[in-house]
Amino acid sequence: MDLTRIKNPSFLKSLTNEELEVLSYTIRQFLIEKLSVTGGHLGANLGVVELTLALHKNFNSPEDKLIFDVGHQSYIHKMLTGRSGQFETLRKFKGLCGFPKMSESEHDVWEAGHSSTSLSAAMGMTIARDIKGDSNYIVPIIGDGALTGGMALEALNHIGHEKKNIIVILNDNEMSIANNVGALHNALGRMRSAGKYNRVKDELEWLLKKIPAVGGKLAHTAERVKDSMKYFMIPGMLFEEFGFTYYGPVDGHDFSALQENLQYAKKTDGPVLIHVITQKGKGYRPAEADIKDKWHGVGPYKIDSGEKITPLNAPPAWSSVVSGTLQKIAREDKRLTVVTPAMILGSKLDKFQLEFPDRLFDVGIAEQHATTMSAGMATQGLKPFLAIYSTFLQRAYDQLLHDVCRQNLNVAFGIDRSGLVGADGETHQGVYDISFLRHMPNMVIMMPKDENECQHMVNTAIQYDDGPIAVRFARGNALGVPMDDILSTIPIGSWEVLEEGTDAVILTFGTTIGMALEASEQLKKQGYSVRVVNARFIKPLDEDMLHDIMSSDMPILTLEETVLQGGFGSAILEFAEANLYTLNNIRRMGIPDHFIEHGKVEELLEEIGLTKEIVVETVQQMLPSKQKRT
Amino acid sequence: MDLTRIKNPSFLKSLTNEELEVLSYTIRQFLIEKLSVTGGHLGANLGVVELTLALHKNFNSPEDKLIFDVGHQSYIHKMLTGRSGQFETLRKFKGLCGFPKMSESEHDVWEAGHSSTSLSAAMGMTIARDIKGDSNYIVPIIGDGALTGGMALEALNHIGHEKKNIIVILNDNEMSIANNVGALHNALGRMRSAGKYNRVKDELEWLLKKIPAVGGKLAHTAERVKDSMKYFMIPGMLFEEFGFTYYGPVDGHDFSALQENLQYAKKTDGPVLIHVITQKGKGYRPAEADIKDKWHGVGPYKIDSGEKITPLNAPPAWSSVVSGTLQKIAREDKRLTVVTPAMILGSKLDKFQLEFPDRLFDVGIAEQHATTMSAGMATQGLKPFLAIYSTFLQRAYDQLLHDVCRQNLNVAFGIDRSGLVGADGETHQGVYDISFLRHMPNMVIMMPKDENECQHMVNTAIQYDDGPIAVRFARGNALGVPMDDILSTIPIGSWEVLEEGTDAVILTFGTTIGMALEASEQLKKQGYSVRVVNARFIKPLDEDMLHDIMSSDMPILTLEETVLQGGFGSAILEFAEANLYTLNNIRRMGIPDHFIEHGKVEELLEEIGLTKEIVVETVQQMLPSKQKRT
Repeated sequence: MDLTRIKNPSFLKSLTNEELEVLSYTIRQFLIEKLSVTGGHLGANLGVVELTLALHKNFNSPEDKLIFDVGHQSYIHKMLTGRSGQFETLRKFKGLCGFPKMSESEHDVWEAGHSSTSLSAAMGMTIARDIKGDSNYIVPIIGDGALTGGMALEALNHIGHEKKNIIVILNDNEMSIANNVGALHNALGRMRSAGKYNRVKDELEWLLKKIPAVGGKLAHTAERVKDSMKYFMIPGMLFEEFGFTYYGPVDGHDFSALQENLQYAKKTDGPVLIHVITQKGKGYRPAEADIKDKWHGVGPYKIDSGEKITPLNAPPAWSSVVSGTLQKIAREDKRLTVVTPAMILGSKLDKFQLEFPDRLFDVGIAEQHATTMSAGMATQGLKPFLAIYSTFLQRAYDQLLHDVCRQNLNVAFGIDRSGLVGADGETHQGVYDISFLRHMPNMVIMMPKDENECQHMVNTAIQYDDGPIAVRFARGNALGVPMDDILSTIPIGSWEVLEEGTDAVILTFGTTIGMALEASEQLKKQGYSVRVVNARFIKPLDEDMLHDIMSSDMPILTLEETVLQGGFGSAILEFAEANLYTLNNIRRMGIPDHFIEHGKVEELLEEIGLTKEIVVETVQQMLPSKQKRT
Repeated sequence: MDLTRIKNPSFLKSLTNEELEVLSYTIRQFLIEKLSVTGGHLGANLGVVELTLALHKNFNSPEDKLIFDVGHQSYIHKMLTGRSGQFETLRKFKGLCGFPKMSESEHDVWEAGHSSTSLSAAMGMTIARDIKGDSNYIVPIIGDGALTGGMALEALNHIGHEKKNIIVILNDNEMSIANNVGALHNALGRMRSAGKYNRVKDELEWLLKKIPAVGGKLAHTAERVKDSMKYFMIPGMLFEEFGFTYYGPVDGHDFSALQENLQYAKKTDGPVLIHVITQKGKGYRPAEADIKDKWHGVGPYKIDSGEKITPLNAPPAWSSVVSGTLQKIAREDKRLTVVTPAMILGSKLDKFQLEFPDRLFDVGIAEQHATTMSAGMATQGLKPFLAIYSTFLQRAYDQLLHDVCRQNLNVAFGIDRSGLVGADGETHQGVYDISFLRHMPNMVIMMPKDENECQHMVNTAIQYDDGPIAVRFARGNALGVPMDDILSTIPIGSWEVLEEGTDAVILTFGTTIGMALEASEQLKKQGYSVRVVNARFIKPLDEDMLHDIMSSDMPILTLEETVLQGGFGSAILEFAEANLYTLNNIRRMGIPDHFIEHGKVEELLEEIGLTKEIVVETVQQMLPSKQKRT
């Protein structure tokens, strides 16, 4: 079958299970082949081939709402809704998004990227359906990992209470982004091993009959025994306690089992949860054998061997530098602990875990808990380091402000994937953290120019004793500079002049430093002397240096790979205003006030005008006015 | 007993239950009397008198860590730790804080104000204790309402998994801030009615013996029946599923029951949850009879009658204006729904609920779910209005950005208690929302000058069709202006000149408008003509008006009751920079970069220099430079 000819999923209705199996095979081969070139979320999608086919066969999208939690497992859904032909552009600039996208298809009824949102979205759609008097089905598909996110649990609690018709598909692959953590995971394990309710129901009836009728003071207890017995025989009693009707566990690769349970669910009143067991990476041996979940999100690979195609001799990843430094410090400093919300692999903490299993805490997808738990550790004199992606730190805004900053606790934050992240696109861009951290009292924010400064900043964060402190760093690889053997600390709030200059100043930090230096180089050729400052502390600012610069009346350009509203450039404007400096000659470059889609970081920077050329141009524009005034 | 002579809780160790009962009576009388003058969280504290005494008798604070979730129920703890003498200053400027405060006492080991943080904090402290090899007890005390907050559920999941020694006290009063919502609440109800495990254990054994031994294919099932039977007989099987040992339910007003269970818990390995049933308002008839929870947080009252002492003929509360307007709109517009996270009473939505029970959704303490559920509603054409306090909206930062703004959905936000909130203090100040909303693409933010404009803004928010929109309003009462009969809409991004003037301009909005008008009045007497602008849209700005003002070269003062970092004033600086205007003569007034404690709003404004006098002074400072330049 030519998958690119599929326009919509209606053809599935007439397929037999055998035909569906053939189609599954074709889809898997297509995915393995296409993703070997583009990269993408291979493992998760290979795991839900049959499930997605069964959902589109048994429901009528888009009237029925299929809501993919996280959304990186929606590739098969995209193929079935007319987008197979675009897979060569997957996650590329202006190409197919790696997540559901309303603008791509009417079948994408909800967009995600962050986890644990599907149940809340589904509840909202369910309420809307009932108010409008419609009767379509609302079907969120959520993984076992995403289920432990606080907002999913909030939604579970509300949905179970309201008793509206909603069909939750729990896609349990025993391993979401990382090995799953938590009591819920243990409960799921018990459910998986318990076998199906249907099978034991008859046996249960038989046993119940063996309990003799009792009277007197025991009658009430006996009645409760009988009435309640279903609870412990149903493997999903946890969900039953939450007010759901539980079906499962269901083999997620067995079409007739899936069909049977989906049809049951459609006839059931109130909220239903179907517990579907799937195998991540199913049908591709290297991914099936992947116990460490290294096939979660992949770059290009060789199909035969599964060997990843990576550039040779690349500099170390920023996250490796950070975790290596943490290991080094942990050997000396017993106070150091590391906390991660389900990102041991993403944050490259596996080696740390191996060396310090008792000092690394993976709390699962639970950023709020991770943050406040770190605060709790800090009250007792530990030095917690919370390794977290910038985009996921958004989940812990209140915990940062109310628990960490307000109590001024020594929690260190390693903000990974700060700045533009590339292929993951607009749900994952780490461009807001400066704007949301900068107005939190007591917070220190820094970003290194290279991996050597990065290791010293990590050390600075751990040694710092005056409250919260964050070191942010980019996705991907560092620069390849030599590393100092001995860790030192960097004075809080100190900037560094990287290039001297007297005609203008560029204040910048992190990933945009290279651009600034190149621009300065080019301007030098034109006879201008432009100073480049490594403004490595975003908060507090280097006030001494700023007073020097601002009293000199040099034009200032701020350059940052973060949003302009409330960002670093605004901090410079605020400083000038607060200190009554002339502000005429300050200009800001950064990310404009709209969401930035997926693509290579260089393409995105070009698109929004964050380039060396525009830096040069902007500085040139500022210089004449300076010359007029001097 | 003279409570003010208590220095620490050690004297409790030797008291008999009878003596504890006498002490409880004395404490209750003290609370009822003191709070009748100062106001405060009476109901919650009356409910935990015996529980707090039992905790301090059975644990050794501060070595053992008593962590009060939310913290407004810590008054008895404060009395037992040497602070009874300060209750006349409760919640007053520079007086005793209404929440735990580390600077007040070494017994306050964790500060709160927002709910659901105690379990995470406790887990952090537990990890620290175990790493340090200590053996003290960690005892979080959490209400049934706070337990449904996502981060508490995240923590429950993690604690149950890690199996560390931690003793959770579930203070179940069947009614936290509002009537409780959710499946968990229903499960708690079943537990309460089930009676104690201890009582039925023997009966259970008897019954189990009546089940005949079976062999063959049924042996496995029979074994599971027996092994698992405890689950359904233990009322707390939900918590057992989460990995906790459950004790309860325990009468929270019975010293010997409390003592017995606390001692059991201390001897139990792994996480324990003690389910304590308390009665809110216990011992004070008006509060006991309070089914609507109107005694949760109170102002002064007459002790005999319970009559609240409120000013006569006060203007309507801002929240009443908002909810009344919603009722008016809901009668015409079937798309309108209202969502609240456990704040029906706080947001004065009880009348709305009465008139439109099917269109008001109280999701419990679950701000993340409330926000994304609203987004889900909006995808289906509803017009959800999320009524939420500014400080609690902090919990939904990521949901705002990732779910609402990124998908540009028509969710209206009614941000209640924006600005300084007074007696609740630093955990509750609503001064961050502008700084954290302003950098979210697609967001519209407005604030009304009076209640008449407020009703039109609420209507504007509902009629708006281009994405998310927020109307923020202060705590307390509006101004008492006449109300238009017919609702209209306000053009998005339009400001209004309230006072003409040519020498300088004050840009301000909401609560600081009065201050600006008075300052203008005073400056007029000195011969200056100062324009006052109602900058009712914080985003988008009124760009036409700003171009006019900035081209005129008039000095500009921005004045806001929100934080200066990234706030409204910064937006004006950013506008000037982006449009290449002279920035020399812009000054900002707002809230400085530190946390603002409790006290009357006027006292706090005075403390931080947000007063008419300083507005006058600042404008005066700016005028000479203008005169030099013209």
